Amino acid sequence: MSDFSIGEKLKVTLFGQSHGPAIGCVMEGFPAGQKIDGDFVAAFMGRRAPGQNAWSTPRKEADQPEILSGLNADGLTCGAPITAVIRNSNTRSGDYEALKDVPRPGHADYTARVKYGDAWDGRGGGQFSARLTAPLCFAGALAKLYLEEKGIHMAAHIARIGRIEDAKPDAVNPSLPFYKPGAFPVISPEQGEAMRQEIEAARSKGDSVGGAVECFITGLPAGLGGPYFGGLEGKLSQALFGIPAVKGLRFGDTQNFGSENNDAFCIRDGKVQTVTNHCGGILGGITNGMPVYFTVDFKPTPSIALPQKSVSLKTMKETEFTVQGRHDPCVVPRAVPVVEAAAAIILLDLVQGE
Amino acid sequence: MSDFSIGEKLKVTLFGQSHGPAIGCVMEGFPAGQKIDGDFVAAFMGRRAPGQNAWSTPRKEADQPEILSGLNADGLTCGAPITAVIRNSNTRSGDYEALKDVPRPGHADYTARVKYGDAWDGRGGGQFSARLTAPLCFAGALAKLYLEEKGIHMAAHIARIGRIEDAKPDAVNPSLPFYKPGAFPVISPEQGEAMRQEIEAARSKGDSVGGAVECFITGLPAGLGGPYFGGLEGKLSQALFGIPAVKGLRFGDTQNFGSENNDAFCIRDGKVQTVTNHCGGILGGITNGMPVYFTVDFKPTPSIALPQKSVSLKTMKETEFTVQGRHDPCVVPRAVPVVEAAAAIILLDLVQGE
Amino acid sequence: MSDFSIGEKLKVTLFGQSHGPAIGCVMEGFPAGQKIDGDFVAAFMGRRAPGQNAWSTPRKEADQPEILSGLNADGLTCGAPITAVIRNSNTRSGDYEALKDVPRPGHADYTARVKYGDAWDGRGGGQFSARLTAPLCFAGALAKLYLEEKGIHMAAHIARIGRIEDAKPDAVNPSLPFYKPGAFPVISPEQGEAMRQEIEAARSKGDSVGGAVECFITGLPAGLGGPYFGGLEGKLSQALFGIPAVKGLRFGDTQNFGSENNDAFCIRDGKVQTVTNHCGGILGGITNGMPVYFTVDFKPTPSIALPQKSVSLKTMKETEFTVQGRHDPCVVPRAVPVVEAAAAIILLDLVQGE
Amino acid sequence: MSDFSIGEKLKVTLFGQSHGPAIGCVMEGFPAGQKIDGDFVAAFMGRRAPGQNAWSTPRKEADQPEILSGLNADGLTCGAPITAVIRNSNTRSGDYEALKDVPRPGHADYTARVKYGDAWDGRGGGQFSARLTAPLCFAGALAKLYLEEKGIHMAAHIARIGRIEDAKPDAVNPSLPFYKPGAFPVISPEQGEAMRQEIEAARSKGDSVGGAVECFITGLPAGLGGPYFGGLEGKLSQALFGIPAVKGLRFGDTQNFGSENNDAFCIRDGKVQTVTNHCGGILGGITNGMPVYFTVDFKPTPSIALPQKSVSLKTMKETEFTVQGRHDPCVVPRAVPVVEAAAAIILLDLVQGE
Repeated sequence: MSDFSIGEKLKVTLFGQSHGPAIGCVMEGFPAGQKIDGDFVAAFMGRRAPGQNAWSTPRKEADQPEILSGLNADGLTCGAPITAVIRNSNTRSGDYEALKDVPRPGHADYTARVKYGDAWDGRGGGQFSARLTAPLCFAGALAKLYLEEKGIHMAAHIARIGRIEDAKPDAVNPSLPFYKPGAFPVISPEQGEAMRQEIEAARSKGDSVGGAVECFITGLPAGLGGPYFGGLEGKLSQALFGIPAVKGLRFGDTQNFGSENNDAFCIRDGKVQTVTNHCGGILGGITNGMPVYFTVDFKPTPSIALPQKSVSLKTMKETEFTVQGRHDPCVVPRAVPVVEAAAAIILLDLVQGE
Repeated sequence: MSDFSIGEKLKVTLFGQSHGPAIGCVMEGFPAGQKIDGDFVAAFMGRRAPGQNAWSTPRKEADQPEILSGLNADGLTCGAPITAVIRNSNTRSGDYEALKDVPRPGHADYTARVKYGDAWDGRGGGQFSARLTAPLCFAGALAKLYLEEKGIHMAAHIARIGRIEDAKPDAVNPSLPFYKPGAFPVISPEQGEAMRQEIEAARSKGDSVGGAVECFITGLPAGLGGPYFGGLEGKLSQALFGIPAVKGLRFGDTQNFGSENNDAFCIRDGKVQTVTNHCGGILGGITNGMPVYFTVDFKPTPSIALPQKSVSLKTMKETEFTVQGRHDPCVVPRAVPVVEAAAAIILLDLVQGE
Repeated sequence: MSDFSIGEKLKVTLFGQSHGPAIGCVMEGFPAGQKIDGDFVAAFMGRRAPGQNAWSTPRKEADQPEILSGLNADGLTCGAPITAVIRNSNTRSGDYEALKDVPRPGHADYTARVKYGDAWDGRGGGQFSARLTAPLCFAGALAKLYLEEKGIHMAAHIARIGRIEDAKPDAVNPSLPFYKPGAFPVISPEQGEAMRQEIEAARSKGDSVGGAVECFITGLPAGLGGPYFGGLEGKLSQALFGIPAVKGLRFGDTQNFGSENNDAFCIRDGKVQTVTNHCGGILGGITNGMPVYFTVDFKPTPSIALPQKSVSLKTMKETEFTVQGRHDPCVVPRAVPVVEAAAAIILLDLVQGE
Repeated sequence: MSDFSIGEKLKVTLFGQSHGPAIGCVMEGFPAGQKIDGDFVAAFMGRRAPGQNAWSTPRKEADQPEILSGLNADGLTCGAPITAVIRNSNTRSGDYEALKDVPRPGHADYTARVKYGDAWDGRGGGQFSARLTAPLCFAGALAKLYLEEKGIHMAAHIARIGRIEDAKPDAVNPSLPFYKPGAFPVISPEQGEAMRQEIEAARSKGDSVGGAVECFITGLPAGLGGPYFGGLEGKLSQALFGIPAVKGLRFGDTQNFGSENNDAFCIRDGKVQTVTNHCGGILGGITNGMPVYFTVDFKPTPSIALPQKSVSLKTMKETEFTVQGRHDPCVVPRAVPVVEAAAAIILLDLVQGE
């Protein structure tokens, strides 16, 4: 498994640097014959796009993917690898030049230089940039399109910003989708308002704030996944921890005691189901036919406007500096579709592999 | 990646069923020339072995691995795959026969039957059994042996039982090991005593209790891992979520705001280090030379002595039943070395791959 | 992909050294519910076993596999990894001790020491030994059993010993099997007799002789494989070149000119077929529904009784010596089922992956 | 392993269809810090480009790769995936429209439709097109550039066209390169002239002719590869059989008898070498420090101007037709750099993995 590839039967490879000519992805193993709904893809990618609202970076990205391969003359997937390219523009490299010697705290600047040496293209974070989640969302949109036609639906929401938490969906019968298109992606408008204030408070102080995204998937058949390292938790985790700034992951809603955590089996609609769903739809690494859900923790974005301490790699002396440039005070709202995209890719891989 | 294999350059494959003739593992890619210290391996595996103390199942397992391949006549690893086999014995299959039709809540009984059909060997959980963590510990012991000789040390402790938490190590300079050999694996003896009471309380009620294990690794060079799906978090996660009953994972100690979460760089001992270590030693998916640490959440063991509700797969009717047999009221104490083992395998894979 | 593993959805891992305690294999991903016919497996493995006839080494091997996992109480595959172990016995390590310093020409002695260092267990060739084709045949027997029940049949024969060639099967309608159980594995008894004389002539001179094995597979559905690196040729090649002493591989029966090499399509039995079958049943890396066939070239076994020149790795001086021990003058007859086994594993992997 | 990806630590993914917007490749794991010599890349790709001489198709391709990622501002590789895109142009899809229903003998038309269904983009062979060897050569050029700086050199030549064979290099001390830049890629100019006549004879009859390419690699360290499925033969084979039209592969120059095939070890230049090199530089799957060489057999290109028999997939009736369009009467001359490219990618993967 290389750094930029995920999946087995369906494999997605990301490429690009933040300030290089382009970013993009290649999807191998996507089923042939799928009509690509351009509006669906654009709407999904638009949920991640920056510059569209008050709570994200003012850097605008057109993020219009050009599809270089994988479609036939009728616009259907044809079995060839699907390649999409998004040109980079509106990059202001000058912002970063001064920092070449001084690694930004919380960023990959230092570890990337250890790994790649001086040839590393650190402009905008290079290949570590969250820009690469744009082609990830392109791939995720295609996966989601396919899954939805199979009756598999997914929806994520902001579960937490700082200490402000959203309402919890019903884990047995979640009402998907959780919010209207274009809205702040929360279940509870009141909590959403409190979250926006939390983000604004961080921004006004030159600070940033972290949070969490919760994702629900319904309609999955029982039997996907496997024991031990083939478990659905492990497969999803590799994709989800691949998203920049993710530091934690929990499946279901584990309770302290077995008597309260075990989900009793029942017969509902003539099928084996469970009364509760603390296990998050996964038993022994395998889907049990109930909704799958998990929560992903994001650290606060490390780019803050406050003065910070770091070191000069040339002089090996400590120094103080301030990050320039434009940055989200909170990545969590834009990360909501990214979480869905990562999950959709893994689930399509599994659904296909059956 | 198949269900029972983990790692790339170093690959560990587990095999066996709980009540089959034997369980074991094959390690491919282990470096040649390593002296295998039998006492080290036995001591490490002994930390996981059941039946040794008051807080675990009375089922005794000799768990003596026989090494079938991989060593030369002098007992050094020779480059061939290392195979170890542990014979099963002391199995009382009768305990489980009655449950063949009625899946136990919280177990893989139902999902395994969906996946494998009636041919599934459900005795003792079959290949889902936590018994297979014994050969995982064998493999982990060898990996740990190799890493320790390279100056890479690891130690895990019980971070939580139910709501009782252990003391936190110093994330910049943790004092490894955290406890004496043979002791209850906690940093704070007082908290350990409270934990044992929590376990005993669950047992006395016929209930079970969950918890968490925290693991620290010191001595890792900076530069291990990679961006996106090659990140150390993702690689460790796939192994850690492979451990039965694991439902959550967090790296480092993420704070709410960027200003408090960012770890300032400093020069210490002539090297680039960080003042704090909230990131858990990983930036951009790559080790930064500071201690790596993470916390793994375990659900309460689903086997409880209380009556539970389930269904008959034959009659498709709901029923009530009580799990028979011997079970740990809490898997967390014995899971401590299992977490170390899973991490050691991934880290040796990465260290070798450099 | 590690050295001893092959396959993706079905993965076979070999282990063991020639003179270690045991050899064996683990099969992951074998379908659950298959009845294992012990006689079938024994008969298949018996075709490879040494010491049974005039043309192979007098070293006897019981080669009775013990199945440690993967079967349920009824002897059906249960979805867990299938592990088989064959104990080593009747090994005379003394034969090889004198050669530790002097690498045998044509063997892996020198290259293994470069790769693994002095810890390499060179007795009997260590993990390079053709002994490991015994567990490969065990795995292949199970795969073949499954495929035969699906109507997919395979048969290999000796295509050549030295310069003596067997008759060619009809590539469109081959008559499988090519020979009676227990017979010298050729189509033409006359050519078989000439081959045996060629082997006997080599043996009487203390020499060895190489040859080729041709394998046919019928009943494969059209559509298996893929373009470029997913082609059936490439997938089979990785398994077939993994067999010791294999140095060449050809698919079909390529003709010099396009006009004679192209297989015209026709309608036969209501299906699209081809009039001839020069392409070996594979077009663009994908099966076309016609018989798949290929020829594998084996070098003459490097162990000969004649004096040979080599060097001392200690003194770095040239020396002359004679290999002691018992060796086949020709590995080709025993390699016939090994070729079938390797192909069966890959084909089951592909058939399952569809 | 997906259809269009090859390699592990260095992984190359191809994409594109013959008549889609573009073709290209992504290289993951290429070492950071390599200066990309554009002239070297262009010269190498030029050896494969069509339309440049009398013996290849008149279709012209600019084949100018645009590099979208993987280089830093100074033109050095930076550790990010390297992506190159080649726009398609000068495609005359009309040539192929008439054939949509009638599969061309020897092509993937039929098998692709079985695998992908009607959505397959069959124009120009879609993703089966040999056009994709252009980005393969781009990737190979970069790999070769890196290897040459490490003292590892490779050169291939036409070993055979039809029944005309080239001279054989000295397998112990081959004189690389075998011919001057721009010349017909053979060692013997006289045999080259005979080959060109053979190609011209085929072309004049509306026929095509096959042949073989032999490739030598010098400067490889001893110790690369591994036993069984990790052998260098198997790793190279997967890449080489991925090249369209390849149907056979032989390593070294195997002799019939062990006494003549075994390469005696000797001391030369103070190092362990072999007197002869029949094994092709590989013993037990591992390089022995001598030149590695192998021969790849290509079938005659299936596109011929003569009338051929096929079937209508709609009517399921037999029919006769003639392939239109422009085609090479022999792919072998242009395949020479493609063979080098495939080998260079695998060797860089192995050299890096050590």
